[in-house]
Amino acid sequence: MTEAAMTDKRVTAAVLVIGDEILSGRTRDSNSHYIAHFLLQIGVETREIRVVPDVEDDIVAALNALRARYDYVFTTGGIGPTHDDITADAVARAFGVEISEDPRAIALLLEQIKPEDLNEARRRMARIPHGAALVANPISKAPGFWIGNVIVMAGVPAIMQAMLDDVAPKLAQGAIILSETIDAPGLPEGAYAGGLANLAKAFPQVSIGSYPSLRDGKFHNQIILRGRDGTMLAEAAAKVRAMLDGVA
Amino acid sequence: MTEAAMTDKRVTAAVLVIGDEILSGRTRDSNSHYIAHFLLQIGVETREIRVVPDVEDDIVAALNALRARYDYVFTTGGIGPTHDDITADAVARAFGVEISEDPRAIALLLEQIKPEDLNEARRRMARIPHGAALVANPISKAPGFWIGNVIVMAGVPAIMQAMLDDVAPKLAQGAIILSETIDAPGLPEGAYAGGLANLAKAFPQVSIGSYPSLRDGKFHNQIILRGRDGTMLAEAAAKVRAMLDGVA
Repeated sequence: MTEAAMTDKRVTAAVLVIGDEILSGRTRDSNSHYIAHFLLQIGVETREIRVVPDVEDDIVAALNALRARYDYVFTTGGIGPTHDDITADAVARAFGVEISEDPRAIALLLEQIKPEDLNEARRRMARIPHGAALVANPISKAPGFWIGNVIVMAGVPAIMQAMLDDVAPKLAQGAIILSETIDAPGLPEGAYAGGLANLAKAFPQVSIGSYPSLRDGKFHNQIILRGRDGTMLAEAAAKVRAMLDGVA
Repeated sequence: MTEAAMTDKRVTAAVLVIGDEILSGRTRDSNSHYIAHFLLQIGVETREIRVVPDVEDDIVAALNALRARYDYVFTTGGIGPTHDDITADAVARAFGVEISEDPRAIALLLEQIKPEDLNEARRRMARIPHGAALVANPISKAPGFWIGNVIVMAGVPAIMQAMLDDVAPKLAQGAIILSETIDAPGLPEGAYAGGLANLAKAFPQVSIGSYPSLRDGKFHNQIILRGRDGTMLAEAAAKVRAMLDGVA
C-alpha cells in the first residue's frame, strides 16, 4: 500500500447503547460521547449512535443493521447479573451462534467472587456467545466480549472505559482525522453562510461545519474543518479565516 | 373510552439527533436526554434515540424507519442557514413532498432580520416542506416545523426547549408512567438478582430494572420500577424492599 492510499484509509464505527434508563431520561448517557471521542483519536470515525431499550428483538435488529454497515459496533450495557441484562443472548441470536457458560469467564469471576457466592444470577455474567474473545474488565472482573465486528462492553462508565483500553490496540486504525476550529464570535451564521458554502464546494475533501451556540442571548459560533490531508486542511482554514475577516 | 382503557394508553416517540459534531465527540448531545425526560412527564415514552451525520441519505433512511414505528419522531439540528443544514430537505424527501420558501416563515424571519440582511443563506431557514405546520421559535424566530408525525426542531438547546414547549400542548398524551426508585447501597447486584427476577415475573405489568453505578470503587445500585398502575406499582415496590431486606 502506498503512503497516499494509507492516508485515505477509513475505518467506521457505530455505538449501540442498550438500556431503558437512558430512554426514560433517568440516566444521561455519557458512554457514547466518550467512545466517539476516544475512537476519533485512533482514526476510527463514529458514524451512528443508537439507544435501544432492554428488549431482545430491538437489540437484535439494531445489531444486525449496524454490524452490516460499519467496520465496528461498540455496545454498552446489559451484561450484568440481573434479569434485564440480555445483551449477550441478543448478540448470540444476532450472530446465529450458541451461548453458554464460558469456563474462561467463570475463572475470571472466581478472582472476585467466592465459590460459595457464585450463584445462578452471577453465573449469567459468564454466558458468552460461542466464538467470542473475552474483553478484560480490570475493575470487577466480569468480562465483555468481542465477536465478529461487535465489541460488547459494560454500561458502568469506569468499566466501559477500561474495556475500551483493552480492545483499542487490537482495532484496525484509520488515517487520523485532523481538525481546525475557527471561532466566529458575534457573527451570525447568516452573515457567512454563503461564503462558507462556496468554500465547502471548493474543498470537497474537507468537511466544513458551522456550529452555533447561544450564550447570554448571543450566538458564539464555531466553524470546524475536518480532513485527513493536513496541507489541504490548512489551506481551507486560511480561506475560511480570510472570508470571515471580509464579513466582520 | 373507559377509565381503564385510558390508563393503558401508550404513546411512543423516537428522537433523531442530526449532526456530525455529536458523532465526532466534539459536542455532547444534551437534547435527547432533555426530550426523553420532558416527554415522560406527559406520558410519552421515548423508545429509541438515533444520532446520524449531516448526510441526506442517512437522515432520510432514519426518518422513514422511525416515523413508521413510533407515534412521534422529534428531530434536533440541521435547520440553520449554512450549507450543512439539510434537515428540511431530507424531511421533504422522506415524505415525498415539495419544499419551498414559506411566506409564513419569511414573515417570522423579518421580525428578527432587516429586509436588506435577508440574504440567500438566511432565506434557506424559511424553506419548509409543503403541508407542514410551523413550530414557534421565540428566541431567534427561525421556525421549526411539524409534518405528519415528525417534529423538526433546532439543535441549539435553548431554542429546542422553547420549540418543545410550543408543541407539547398539541401532542397526544399517554397514561403517565409512574416510577419508584429503591436504593440498594452496598449490595452487589448478584446478591439480589435471583429474587428480583422472580418479582419481575410475578409483576409482568411493572417494568423492573437494576442500575449499577460505581462510586469510590463501590457499587451503589438502584432498582427502578415503572408502571401505569399505581396500586400494582406500590405492591411490587413493597415486595422488592422486603426481598432486599432478606438479602442484606
